Amino acid sequence: MSPASPVTLCDLLGRQQPGMTLEQPFYTDPGIFEEDLNRIVARQWLYVDHVSAIPQPGDVLTYEIAGESIILVRGRDREVRAFFNVCRHRGSRIITKACDHVRTLTCPYHAWTWDLEGKLVKARSMADDFRTEDWPLHACRTRIYQGLVFICLAEEDDDDVIEFDSIADRLDPYIENHCLGAAKVAARKAYPTAGNWKLAVENFRECYHCAPAHPGYTSVNAYVLDGERDQQARSETVAAWAATWEERGVVTRSTGVWGDSYDERQPHAAMRQPIKEGYRTLSRDGRPVAPLMGRLIDWDGGETLMVFGPLFYIYLAGDHAALFRFTPVHATHTDVEVTWLVNGDAREGEDYDEERLTWMWDVTTIEDTRIIGDNQLGVNSRRYRPGRYSTRERATTNFVEWYKRRMGDQL
Amino acid sequence: MSPASPVTLCDLLGRQQPGMTLEQPFYTDPGIFEEDLNRIVARQWLYVDHVSAIPQPGDVLTYEIAGESIILVRGRDREVRAFFNVCRHRGSRIITKACDHVRTLTCPYHAWTWDLEGKLVKARSMADDFRTEDWPLHACRTRIYQGLVFICLAEEDDDDVIEFDSIADRLDPYIENHCLGAAKVAARKAYPTAGNWKLAVENFRECYHCAPAHPGYTSVNAYVLDGERDQQARSETVAAWAATWEERGVVTRSTGVWGDSYDERQPHAAMRQPIKEGYRTLSRDGRPVAPLMGRLIDWDGGETLMVFGPLFYIYLAGDHAALFRFTPVHATHTDVEVTWLVNGDAREGEDYDEERLTWMWDVTTIEDTRIIGDNQLGVNSRRYRPGRYSTRERATTNFVEWYKRRMGDQL
Amino acid sequence: MSPASPVTLCDLLGRQQPGMTLEQPFYTDPGIFEEDLNRIVARQWLYVDHVSAIPQPGDVLTYEIAGESIILVRGRDREVRAFFNVCRHRGSRIITKACDHVRTLTCPYHAWTWDLEGKLVKARSMADDFRTEDWPLHACRTRIYQGLVFICLAEEDDDDVIEFDSIADRLDPYIENHCLGAAKVAARKAYPTAGNWKLAVENFRECYHCAPAHPGYTSVNAYVLDGERDQQARSETVAAWAATWEERGVVTRSTGVWGDSYDERQPHAAMRQPIKEGYRTLSRDGRPVAPLMGRLIDWDGGETLMVFGPLFYIYLAGDHAALFRFTPVHATHTDVEVTWLVNGDAREGEDYDEERLTWMWDVTTIEDTRIIGDNQLGVNSRRYRPGRYSTRERATTNFVEWYKRRMGDQL
Repeated sequence: MSPASPVTLCDLLGRQQPGMTLEQPFYTDPGIFEEDLNRIVARQWLYVDHVSAIPQPGDVLTYEIAGESIILVRGRDREVRAFFNVCRHRGSRIITKACDHVRTLTCPYHAWTWDLEGKLVKARSMADDFRTEDWPLHACRTRIYQGLVFICLAEEDDDDVIEFDSIADRLDPYIENHCLGAAKVAARKAYPTAGNWKLAVENFRECYHCAPAHPGYTSVNAYVLDGERDQQARSETVAAWAATWEERGVVTRSTGVWGDSYDERQPHAAMRQPIKEGYRTLSRDGRPVAPLMGRLIDWDGGETLMVFGPLFYIYLAGDHAALFRFTPVHATHTDVEVTWLVNGDAREGEDYDEERLTWMWDVTTIEDTRIIGDNQLGVNSRRYRPGRYSTRERATTNFVEWYKRRMGDQL
Repeated sequence: MSPASPVTLCDLLGRQQPGMTLEQPFYTDPGIFEEDLNRIVARQWLYVDHVSAIPQPGDVLTYEIAGESIILVRGRDREVRAFFNVCRHRGSRIITKACDHVRTLTCPYHAWTWDLEGKLVKARSMADDFRTEDWPLHACRTRIYQGLVFICLAEEDDDDVIEFDSIADRLDPYIENHCLGAAKVAARKAYPTAGNWKLAVENFRECYHCAPAHPGYTSVNAYVLDGERDQQARSETVAAWAATWEERGVVTRSTGVWGDSYDERQPHAAMRQPIKEGYRTLSRDGRPVAPLMGRLIDWDGGETLMVFGPLFYIYLAGDHAALFRFTPVHATHTDVEVTWLVNGDAREGEDYDEERLTWMWDVTTIEDTRIIGDNQLGVNSRRYRPGRYSTRERATTNFVEWYKRRMGDQL
Repeated sequence: MSPASPVTLCDLLGRQQPGMTLEQPFYTDPGIFEEDLNRIVARQWLYVDHVSAIPQPGDVLTYEIAGESIILVRGRDREVRAFFNVCRHRGSRIITKACDHVRTLTCPYHAWTWDLEGKLVKARSMADDFRTEDWPLHACRTRIYQGLVFICLAEEDDDDVIEFDSIADRLDPYIENHCLGAAKVAARKAYPTAGNWKLAVENFRECYHCAPAHPGYTSVNAYVLDGERDQQARSETVAAWAATWEERGVVTRSTGVWGDSYDERQPHAAMRQPIKEGYRTLSRDGRPVAPLMGRLIDWDGGETLMVFGPLFYIYLAGDHAALFRFTPVHATHTDVEVTWLVNGDAREGEDYDEERLTWMWDVTTIEDTRIIGDNQLGVNSRRYRPGRYSTRERATTNFVEWYKRRMGDQL
């Protein structure tokens, strides 16, 4: 059966009210999910992994997003490149199972073979007019930043993608002293989440829910209750902390409030604030969970949230970085992966303990998977109607407004 | 791919023949299933549970139907109310897990809080022009009848819903002496059924299939074979039984034959007949399975079928009531729940035994789940064509004709 | 959401390039899959089973294909007939579970009863104008050929189906001496395959992939490497083998190269070639795995591939036949069944050993399920584009060109 009068994406966008949550189909409809992938996700720089995952030429890994499988491989020239995991002959996956090193990229089906730079070097029994140079692997844009590999699925001629340099230039001061390129992965956990990716993002970008829903997180982050109880006092606390550390040359001012958009194509930002009186890091008791990172000069008691568009965030503390990667899977499912980095020379058991390191974000993210799943179930109701955001959900509101503009621009 | 020329619901209804089963899409198409939910299911009074499930103020349960989760809660004023389980803020489920008592209805996400009557009493950090009185929970129509809680999903201004009183007025004489409001739930069983809800309803409303498919049921209910063998003799048996009991003030005449429609919006009826020579109740051997219910004066050897629209039925015997609740789940799945009620003061093991009490309907309903699943599989075939109903499927035919009128009226 | 401008099947067919793989939707779209079933699969003669599965009157089996359940039953006249497993009354399945013998075809729902020839013989309580002769079971075309049962799902008046006799006439010389009608089923294995049926068929029809992907098969079949290394030498080997055996009256010439189409409605062919120097049959070491079949005069060291349209193939060796049945299940799933036949009087453990008999096709088909699954995953990518077939994929190319013509003819 086809519906009598289908509602279009245009109609839906047209009737959205500012300051209100999205209408139901944006959270449930498989067709809109496909549009999200094509219009939003495919045009973002997306974090994949830390470079230490493929240290040597021929080291390889794959990342599945938006129905794609992307091969990351380090070439003989030590450059990291990304390719679509699709054979140019009949379309087979080329890397088909757990595999961490290759000499060439050889399709297991008919043995078409590409070198590590994506050039076709062997294809048996082709007609005489077949030219191998016409059939390189489909390349995928790649960029390494602070030891983190980013890709972008958009075609090369799609100019609706931000220059990565403009992100890097703005965010360098907040991240460069952590020297993440020399860090190591201390822990990595997966949080499958039964909700639309936008519900997961909305959740991540506000802390209005922290007091009722995240007791552990709230016990560590003073801003949650401070801001709720007395905004004025909170501002003074932040100002005093900033004054102390600016004097010592530490950056403490944010690029802007959370979620502010510097570039419509991929809004990015960094925000700093003090953790809690007496707390050096984001741990249960405030005591360090690993050695001070990189070139940091002292425990400044601050935390940094870095925003790389809707789907990737970093929380920096003095002794670790927590990386949050959101992978939309289908209209009502999102995979969240959290990766914890510490200094490259830190030794597990001596310099850090995984349980203490991961505690706060692990309990918080587990709580969020439940929250987001319940949010999705409610949004599925015929009686769901857009609701009104509070004053404490500004970065979430900003995301939703940005989402609507991006979807609308492209109609 | 989109179909070349989509068939509309109008086309399908237009070419249906009277006295014939429905065309395939009515039993298989997800789009028609959605229309069924909106046009039919959402406009019926639907049985949820017996009031004894939530006896005290703050007692709460949820019922999932038609993609909705409905909260039933008893207020401080002891009234039972129903609400859509959807937060007015961002749409989260409010009751999110097994929970049988609450002090308030508090969303676990951002702690918006409603009282047990559905009034918003707390929402932190909202803009100054936010008025809590504008954001009550979405109420759901509720009605208690004979201790049974009914709801209706339709919006308050939808007048295509029957007044419950007109059902009550007509059916009171058949049910009031059982005093179901003072009864207790003795057993409850779930029968997941792999068929469209209309196949489940068609099955329930005819006994043409009983002789071949339900040996247990047929051994108890004389009408199955009597009616098949000699309609005249059967009529005389019924008349004799009626004469005996009418004399003692017992209602024996039906409101009409099965499936007759008194109100197009929600056809309802009650029908009485004798069980079998020497049988006091619907048990394997005809002997009682529990104490005589409520204010009944004697074992009259009759059974009563009560029809509350397509999705809820009660079978009354002298010592128990069996409640049949049909919940459409998706185009090819229906959940059937059977609940057995006995007198509120009957004690298990002394006054009744669950196995004896539930035997007939349990074996019969298990058989029906298999039958309906096989019916669905056959109907899925490209070669399925509408077939002709027999003379013994009149209540099923009535249902199908009513269904077609209801779907057509609303085009 | 409905797509802004749906692509039609016509558009897709119109932009396909010759010699290139199909565009993505042909391998992924559920709507095209339905069209495939209706336009292609339903119009093919489809192999079901060997006649020995239902030797006696009343013996019965069912085969599920294209959403249908087909009953095969041997009548009292010993004829094998096929019927759609759909009751003419309310559409129930008639044969509902494992069942290998019946006296009548009786629907378990309301006991409508057909004789083994499909004539309705009992339907209780029908209106006076009901005539049983109007309600036979839906017959399905059936044909026995060389002991193999074929069916065709098309309606009787659909003349876009080949006459089976024209297939039989052409293929008789290649198969009749094997006397498959007197053979027995020695083994049968199922290979569920996570790929579109056309990917499975494309895979089966070329051996370009054998050297890289099938080491076992390649070690047995000399043509794989011979043809790749030196086509000229290979032609001479084949010619010498043909000369030797033609002299003894054995057919050695193919009806045409693989995949050539003799009849657009159901392309069929037979192709012969020598196995490998010193090999008598398709076994690991070339030694026989069972007695010489039927009326064969000697071990001629050849193998025969018989093509019955896209969905059924037979590989004949001197001592066994391997039957390959492809059953499309949904857009990205195909069930492959391989059945091994040996002489009817061969005894397991004495005359043949199942492991030796099945080795080559079993390992090869397991490998193919993996290959096809990986092919499907890659084809799902947004970046998949049609690729170019090699010179060694001619029968695959033929199949794809035929597929496009068949789909286009019917628009």
